[in-house]
Amino acid sequence: MSMALFDRVALIGIGLIGSSLARVLRRDSPDTVIVACARRAETLEAVRRLGIADETTDDPAAAVAGADLVVLATPLSAYAEIGRRIAPALREGAIVTDVGSVKGAAIRDLLPLMPFHAHFVPGHPVAGTEHSGPDSGFAELFRDRWCILTPLPQTSPEAVAKVTALWEGAGMRVVTMAADHHDKVLAVTSHLPHLIAYTIVGTATDLGHDLQSEVVAFSAGGFRDFTRIAASDPVMWRDIFLSNREAVLELLQRFSEDLTALQRAIRRGEGDTLEQRFAQTRAIRRSIIEAKQA
Amino acid sequence: MSMALFDRVALIGIGLIGSSLARVLRRDSPDTVIVACARRAETLEAVRRLGIADETTDDPAAAVAGADLVVLATPLSAYAEIGRRIAPALREGAIVTDVGSVKGAAIRDLLPLMPFHAHFVPGHPVAGTEHSGPDSGFAELFRDRWCILTPLPQTSPEAVAKVTALWEGAGMRVVTMAADHHDKVLAVTSHLPHLIAYTIVGTATDLGHDLQSEVVAFSAGGFRDFTRIAASDPVMWRDIFLSNREAVLELLQRFSEDLTALQRAIRRGEGDTLEQRFAQTRAIRRSIIEAKQA
Repeated sequence: MSMALFDRVALIGIGLIGSSLARVLRRDSPDTVIVACARRAETLEAVRRLGIADETTDDPAAAVAGADLVVLATPLSAYAEIGRRIAPALREGAIVTDVGSVKGAAIRDLLPLMPFHAHFVPGHPVAGTEHSGPDSGFAELFRDRWCILTPLPQTSPEAVAKVTALWEGAGMRVVTMAADHHDKVLAVTSHLPHLIAYTIVGTATDLGHDLQSEVVAFSAGGFRDFTRIAASDPVMWRDIFLSNREAVLELLQRFSEDLTALQRAIRRGEGDTLEQRFAQTRAIRRSIIEAKQA
Repeated sequence: MSMALFDRVALIGIGLIGSSLARVLRRDSPDTVIVACARRAETLEAVRRLGIADETTDDPAAAVAGADLVVLATPLSAYAEIGRRIAPALREGAIVTDVGSVKGAAIRDLLPLMPFHAHFVPGHPVAGTEHSGPDSGFAELFRDRWCILTPLPQTSPEAVAKVTALWEGAGMRVVTMAADHHDKVLAVTSHLPHLIAYTIVGTATDLGHDLQSEVVAFSAGGFRDFTRIAASDPVMWRDIFLSNREAVLELLQRFSEDLTALQRAIRRGEGDTLEQRFAQTRAIRRSIIEAKQA
């Protein structure tokens, strides 16, 4: 019997997150057979060149055959179709997990398709960079970051424990919470920031070519941080906003009100209002530094 | 005759920028006498402890006496009062420059006060961190960043050349442009990003204590970049928004329209609109990386 946590792992989607996990498994669990599945031939070619999988295929059903762990790491909009294709091929006791940023949608699209003999453990390793594709992955991506699992009441505790061990092995701190709570928290910490960053970079882009070269040159004043965030994968983010629509729209409404209040203070020259508001936000930065997430 | 560019430099305001410049002068120009001026006794005490000035005073007029270079590095709202106090004490041929983020306001507040025998060269080294105070400075802060000078038509070219040499010596690339153009460019690259960051961090702070600890824990998803920007000095930023009101409000209007368009696309489930918009913003990130400002 192998000492590995999983004997055969199917990674459906092998971009930044999938390929980083493959690198972790390669490093820590050499006996585990890694199957990489991607739609595009050039992605699979990159995986072979990188040597981060034992087998490659563009067929999700073939990928999951015999696997004791299946990890979905594609954009959210692909989940339903992949779920339909893998469900009949899942082996007895297989654990299916995912890495998607919206857990309500993941559960909605996948859970009804899962056979009784498989275990679905919705998950979200909160880690990333603005780069995408298998070349951009690295094993240390997950180190000291949080992974959120959102199991359902009926989810097998043993399956949750094994997925927890997987991410802890990658260096993550693992917590569990309800899916809808996850989606609200991530709307604040990730989804709204990305939407704002995409917007502000878009606004700057629209200013016209002349100003644009200067915007690039003088971006060190704050703008470049937004451009980094706004360089994230467009399809992944399209899916996130469509999948977490309600929480994002609710938060966006609050944000717009707050922005309007600051806009009004600037227009009316209310310096005290501005200073007080700006001083408040320093405190939350200190909390993040203390929590070692900076 | 000294080889130093300036024999006696008065730094009025000795926070992040002022103290970083002091460190550059200490390193590269040991013959230059550095006078640090600050309002608060503890700031001057820190300067003495750090050993980055030869003399310290809380009197701007005393600080500039005999100085061939005066650098204003305080919040913008202090300029008019400092200008009134230093004007009678400026020596023949003294160069006065500043590091403020809004050049129109700097010129408006200082130029009318300058005596005919002094030269005012408005300047803006575009560099910074979210930290403030003399302890946060470092000589390499300016390395490979841009410095924008906004001289007036009547400004002495020799004075502009000497201020250019100062910042080039600190490792900066120096350009000149009109003050109002500077203020428009910086509204995009720096002022709007800071306002947005302050707003989003404020919105998150208002969500209540329970959610807040989770927001801190899971901030790696994008939010923490905003908290870093929103940790910048509140008084400095209050002054920037009040001083560059028109350009900021004009840009804020465009930003709000763009955000509303994305909000509408999310609400209506228009994935193509989102994806196209998100793909566009990747291009500007590539430009910044190519311009080595990332």
